[in-house]
Amino acid sequence: MPIPQLSVSRRTRSTPFTSRIAAGGVKAYTVYNHMLLPTVFRSVQEDYWHLCQHVQVWDVSAERQVQLKGRDAARLVQLMTPRDISSAQDDQCFYMPLCDENGSMINDPIGIKVADDTWWLSIADSDVKLWAKGLATGLRLDVEVTEPDVWPVAVQGPKAEALMQRVFGDIVNDIRFFRYKRLAFMGHEMLVARSGWSKQGGFEIYVNDAAIGQALWDELFVQGADLNVGHGCPNGIERIESGLLSLGNDMDDSMTPLQCGLDKYCHLDRGLESLSVAALAKQKAEGVPSRLMGIVVPGMTQPPQTAHVLVDGLLAGEVTSHCVSARYDGWLAFALMDSSAIRTAQGAVSVHTEQGDFDGLCVELPFDFNAIGDSLRLR
Amino acid sequence: MPIPQLSVSRRTRSTPFTSRIAAGGVKAYTVYNHMLLPTVFRSVQEDYWHLCQHVQVWDVSAERQVQLKGRDAARLVQLMTPRDISSAQDDQCFYMPLCDENGSMINDPIGIKVADDTWWLSIADSDVKLWAKGLATGLRLDVEVTEPDVWPVAVQGPKAEALMQRVFGDIVNDIRFFRYKRLAFMGHEMLVARSGWSKQGGFEIYVNDAAIGQALWDELFVQGADLNVGHGCPNGIERIESGLLSLGNDMDDSMTPLQCGLDKYCHLDRGLESLSVAALAKQKAEGVPSRLMGIVVPGMTQPPQTAHVLVDGLLAGEVTSHCVSARYDGWLAFALMDSSAIRTAQGAVSVHTEQGDFDGLCVELPFDFNAIGDSLRLR
Repeated sequence: MPIPQLSVSRRTRSTPFTSRIAAGGVKAYTVYNHMLLPTVFRSVQEDYWHLCQHVQVWDVSAERQVQLKGRDAARLVQLMTPRDISSAQDDQCFYMPLCDENGSMINDPIGIKVADDTWWLSIADSDVKLWAKGLATGLRLDVEVTEPDVWPVAVQGPKAEALMQRVFGDIVNDIRFFRYKRLAFMGHEMLVARSGWSKQGGFEIYVNDAAIGQALWDELFVQGADLNVGHGCPNGIERIESGLLSLGNDMDDSMTPLQCGLDKYCHLDRGLESLSVAALAKQKAEGVPSRLMGIVVPGMTQPPQTAHVLVDGLLAGEVTSHCVSARYDGWLAFALMDSSAIRTAQGAVSVHTEQGDFDGLCVELPFDFNAIGDSLRLR
Repeated sequence: MPIPQLSVSRRTRSTPFTSRIAAGGVKAYTVYNHMLLPTVFRSVQEDYWHLCQHVQVWDVSAERQVQLKGRDAARLVQLMTPRDISSAQDDQCFYMPLCDENGSMINDPIGIKVADDTWWLSIADSDVKLWAKGLATGLRLDVEVTEPDVWPVAVQGPKAEALMQRVFGDIVNDIRFFRYKRLAFMGHEMLVARSGWSKQGGFEIYVNDAAIGQALWDELFVQGADLNVGHGCPNGIERIESGLLSLGNDMDDSMTPLQCGLDKYCHLDRGLESLSVAALAKQKAEGVPSRLMGIVVPGMTQPPQTAHVLVDGLLAGEVTSHCVSARYDGWLAFALMDSSAIRTAQGAVSVHTEQGDFDGLCVELPFDFNAIGDSLRLR
């Protein structure tokens, strides 16, 4: 369909950075956690190359924080996730599936241990606050569930570290991957983590004061002028090339983390007090009915309107996200593939599109472009 | 800001009617319950007059159903709402605030008693499924919480009854306001209620089969050709003139239903087993700190970029929704007004805009245009 307009209202919440984003030439948004999330500035392709070569500042305020505070905060986090959080360090960020008692995916936040009695869940697009509040109310847990005024800003790209050093000092070098430090800007401390929704490197700043956040935003652009700093946002091509899954696009509550390739975040044999471990252990023993895989069609450089993955002439799964690669000469997709079809395919599938049928590869995620290399050339 | 584009993805779910909506010339969407909801076809003004004079077919699939099924279904509904549902008839639709133990607004669905052990909550824009599931899990209730494949279609406008008669027969005349019947189309029964998010009259059809729904959609347009049937959607002007509140715009979880003028849906002295009645009874006794009111500026016919409501020169509240009326010669707004300012104002406020300052009225909602009539002329 032609690209429609978005009607912006109070319900599609703006952020402290919306006026700067507009001045920066945002072309399109999505709505994520009831909030505006930019999706395109120049074009998705131009944004991609800029991200991979320079440094971008992203308004990812839509990554809302759900704060769990109280004596039972860690217990509630553990109830919600099959990942063992007992070893969480004081400065650690944990990627974690949240699942219900059927093992269904509710969300896949980054959990941040802010204090012994306080966790933040930096969430994907579903109302985790309501899930956590419902559980806390029903179980009479000693925990307060809120959405604090925190608007994350991401600084992403190969020059991110250089830019962050200029603004926060050399201490940013000491922040390890998926760890955070409390750094001051204008005398005001904020959590700064080495993380972000790209594989180009960078940081996320958990801005908790709107006015200081705006000053920080402007300072990043002043300090980064000679680094070719630019506006940006999570990029639809980069995230697929990098194998980053998106809740609602690639994962939903009809699926378990075992179907999403998140096995390593499911600790099923540690006796955790977690709602989902029994159901997940059962599914692990029985085998998953379907699983997210990567699909590659070398040489297909026009994005198809529709794409069906076939094995032996039969529909073998459902494409959940796809793009024409910017870096490689081909088309990349994530697809929820029937387990039996994965076995039958032995790596070879057919992709049916309105442009015709194409031979494709079916591979594990994330894509291993070195292994695929022979058939998928750099552009 | 200039009107941005909406990036449509699998996460911003399409509906069985999206292709028909696109063919019908949709200009803009919002995202509501993670789903596309049309907002404009011709222009908001043209859509308004067409709605008020003819009949429109709306894709309101984004009014998702949360189904509660099991022995404890009604108990869970009652826990979630301060409205007494004990007298619910088998064919009844109940508008109901959903509130947590603080009395905070979680959602304001229409609750539909589908069977003794089955309720549907036809929700506004928040993940009630997670709230209900969390409570059910924590309290170990015997209830299954799901989002069934139901995509409501609304038929709204003064000719709605005539059109519905042609498609479903004279039996539609017998459906009372906020009641439903099970009516067949192509031999397939669906719930049909006399309801809808306008005050122009009409019905909502709870389509539960995508293919039959598409055939029904097309039949409504065939049968309605001489009635000037058209595409439409909840209309930003009509809903404000009619005093219809919108969750996320006018109400959120920083407010209680008593602040939203929903007192008559709060049964606080019946000993209900409801999470929120204690907090609401306390607030009722103490008085609300602020309350949604209507603001009217006769003669202001250009929509302001910013509008602040002042009483005695001081900021007296926050505008939550506003429009230039299509029918009356003036500007209409909802505003969350400080209770003390309401008392001081005695009906007279000042509205500060970038166009200048205007004298305005502060009135109870819904607007009583007969009472306001002297100062607000029909166009």
